[in-house]
Amino acid sequence: MNSEEFRKYGKELIDFVAEYMETNEKYSVKSTVVPGDIFSQLPSVPPDNPESFETIIKDFHDLIIPGITHWQSPNFYAYFSSNNSYESILGELLSSALGVHAFSWETSPAATELEEMMMIWLRDMISLPNQFVGVIQDTASTSTLCSLLTAREQKFKKNPLLKRSEISNFRVYCSTEAHSSIERAVHITGIGKQNLVKIATNSDFSMNIDLLENYLNNDLRNGFIPLCVVSAIGTTGSLAVDPVDKISEIAKKYDLWHHVDAAYSGNAMILDEYKYLSNLVKDCDTFVFNPHKWLFINFDFSAYFVRDKEALISTFEILPEYLKTSQGNSVNNYRDWGIQLGRRFRALKAWFVIRSYGVSGLKEKLRYHNYLAELIYNKVVESNDFELMAPFFMNLVCFRFKPDDLLNEDEINRINEDLLQKINSTGKLFLTKTKLNNKTTLRMVTGTTRANEKYVLDAWHHIERLAQQYKN
Amino acid sequence: MNSEEFRKYGKELIDFVAEYMETNEKYSVKSTVVPGDIFSQLPSVPPDNPESFETIIKDFHDLIIPGITHWQSPNFYAYFSSNNSYESILGELLSSALGVHAFSWETSPAATELEEMMMIWLRDMISLPNQFVGVIQDTASTSTLCSLLTAREQKFKKNPLLKRSEISNFRVYCSTEAHSSIERAVHITGIGKQNLVKIATNSDFSMNIDLLENYLNNDLRNGFIPLCVVSAIGTTGSLAVDPVDKISEIAKKYDLWHHVDAAYSGNAMILDEYKYLSNLVKDCDTFVFNPHKWLFINFDFSAYFVRDKEALISTFEILPEYLKTSQGNSVNNYRDWGIQLGRRFRALKAWFVIRSYGVSGLKEKLRYHNYLAELIYNKVVESNDFELMAPFFMNLVCFRFKPDDLLNEDEINRINEDLLQKINSTGKLFLTKTKLNNKTTLRMVTGTTRANEKYVLDAWHHIERLAQQYKN
Repeated sequence: MNSEEFRKYGKELIDFVAEYMETNEKYSVKSTVVPGDIFSQLPSVPPDNPESFETIIKDFHDLIIPGITHWQSPNFYAYFSSNNSYESILGELLSSALGVHAFSWETSPAATELEEMMMIWLRDMISLPNQFVGVIQDTASTSTLCSLLTAREQKFKKNPLLKRSEISNFRVYCSTEAHSSIERAVHITGIGKQNLVKIATNSDFSMNIDLLENYLNNDLRNGFIPLCVVSAIGTTGSLAVDPVDKISEIAKKYDLWHHVDAAYSGNAMILDEYKYLSNLVKDCDTFVFNPHKWLFINFDFSAYFVRDKEALISTFEILPEYLKTSQGNSVNNYRDWGIQLGRRFRALKAWFVIRSYGVSGLKEKLRYHNYLAELIYNKVVESNDFELMAPFFMNLVCFRFKPDDLLNEDEINRINEDLLQKINSTGKLFLTKTKLNNKTTLRMVTGTTRANEKYVLDAWHHIERLAQQYKN
Repeated sequence: MNSEEFRKYGKELIDFVAEYMETNEKYSVKSTVVPGDIFSQLPSVPPDNPESFETIIKDFHDLIIPGITHWQSPNFYAYFSSNNSYESILGELLSSALGVHAFSWETSPAATELEEMMMIWLRDMISLPNQFVGVIQDTASTSTLCSLLTAREQKFKKNPLLKRSEISNFRVYCSTEAHSSIERAVHITGIGKQNLVKIATNSDFSMNIDLLENYLNNDLRNGFIPLCVVSAIGTTGSLAVDPVDKISEIAKKYDLWHHVDAAYSGNAMILDEYKYLSNLVKDCDTFVFNPHKWLFINFDFSAYFVRDKEALISTFEILPEYLKTSQGNSVNNYRDWGIQLGRRFRALKAWFVIRSYGVSGLKEKLRYHNYLAELIYNKVVESNDFELMAPFFMNLVCFRFKPDDLLNEDEINRINEDLLQKINSTGKLFLTKTKLNNKTTLRMVTGTTRANEKYVLDAWHHIERLAQQYKN
């Protein structure tokens, strides 16, 4: 493709993107293809000769689009949103064209220094204490893994007599509602899944810290080495908030590393009404939230903050000859701040989004999303047929269908599983489920960029209508 | 930003990208800013009110561009190239607009199934045996980490009596020229850097396998547990090729896991003249190469291949309720094929590039890059002032300045360090260095998308001219 063709197709695709972003509700939000539908239409050998870009774009529309589940559709209420924005798409466009690496300062000084400043902006926007220093990671999975690795290395550093083989006696603690990425991280570090202690929750699905202390004392008696506790600001199931400040006190008492996973809800800490959350986390060691979920900076962009930058760097630093640069330690070389060497220039899209929205604009959008969820919350509590399954918080409503005459829990679960299938198979909505107290629970997250009152109320009416068939 | 503004700015930026891609040699290839130059120009607090996109783009040009090291410039000869293409940029544009996740099949069937097929295409393009199954990772660092984790877990699975605490007796082997990501991965897995055994190399910088066997026997006598050997097709320093087939035999004899790191040179395995490399690797367990380095698919796109898919999945699989989908194991859920849960739709850009270039077009470009390196190689061997530092292979030339009258090795090193600084400080070229046999070595990689004869020869003349000042 030459420059002229790029201009032509590029502009065509900009028009497509504009149209897509405005009208993606016209597609079935959850793709209706069956396994193998797309694969079987693709040639199993690559073309030897060039194909025209005309053909390729046509195939994109004909083969790929039908297999897309439209995360950016206002009818997407599943998982947590992973919302994007025009500004962010343009940031990614420039970043992919520049094609620079942000692994050493000198491999692109602007990429490193803009990342430094964006992490200061984000830190201050969520009112994290200014001792914290941030770095962009791809996902919260990676951020949490980095935190556990740092905890592990600090433990050995501070206890020089501790043998490396003791790693299989380390213990990590989180609640039963904590994210699966913690279990994966504990596994990767070599500590092992069997050493992840999952603490039961209170009735609001937050960690029961009396139980945490019981486990800690028990583990100490049994020769285990308590290493780390991971608390949550907003669990995946129901956005429960652990008593993070009290967990920090326990962490101090038992010499535990304390990581806070605020992947989704951390975004809302930019709002004054959630400033109390910032106060909860001020004594933790590391903190992660994902602007790619709810701040219109498209995936991937996970904001990872550490209190002790040297502890992070000493965990990862390796300096072979071919990576030595003349600036040494006078600059940030982000290759030593995480797992990967190669790093994209991701700060650019954050800069575009934060400046174009303004912090006030971001706040307005998030408050609107919370208002939309409140509409659903009100519908649920007003209805005789639906039941709220967890305390309502931010923009997630957890509910299930349960008319008064339905009493058998297995039956209720079965019906809700079936109802969810029906909701999703229409292509009009996409919701996902979880289990809370072993009860099948539907989750509705109102956090897409284009979410509005009309879509949300239509969605509710649709759910209500589909649920009628289960009534006697 | 509304849809109309996006169309306007999007098209403006498409024009900028086209111009940038054609004329980026006009910039100083290595940014000339000093530490803090960019940072100090950025406001330390985010704007509360929205700023116009006009202003933001102006700042991009005025503040960011001067701080960019231009990886896509034809004057970039540093590290390994991380080349991009128009097709790839457009693939990324669509991928960021769709904003889907490829973590479960149903979170976007097309993203999963296109990834399946692209990994078949790439596998067959490099003639890897068809037992291999591929998955896209972000970097070779991550791919290598995945391989080591799988090796670790398979060892425990096959030896149920082995205690987890034995992890600190595991041993991993690679050559002294192997990439630093291996050391980092051994560290992350909990095996520990002290258990990475670095094997000295032969005169061509390939692993000395007699030494490997010596170490293995020694370690076994001393109660260590040999776990894994990592061999290289193309080391970072000099593109040395380990005797991978013989290492596979040793791996079999000692029950070692065998991972092959072909991050850069693996790309050239699409060429008939390197088919012998494919034969070398056919018995390994896992294999990684990075199409984002030399196949015009922009960063990030690391192609990771495994012989035993179940071994990979069982290393990572975790299935919480909120991730359960109705397809179960009948489809690929890539969330269980690596570290991260969230995954971008990266197959799209590969599809665009491979189809638009055609395999023959890709071959032609790679052969041209090798031809360009040959021009430099000829200059080096013809010159009395320069010395070849490693066997010439593919598109990397390793050399140093060494006129006949210069005999002191420390002096030669010092002069070459100084020469490199001078070369890079002009802004006309960017090369990086390594040490081979403790000798400072300049590396010149001719793998950018726009590399051509004129640029390469100009670069050589420039280097020659700058070197004259060191002659008596």
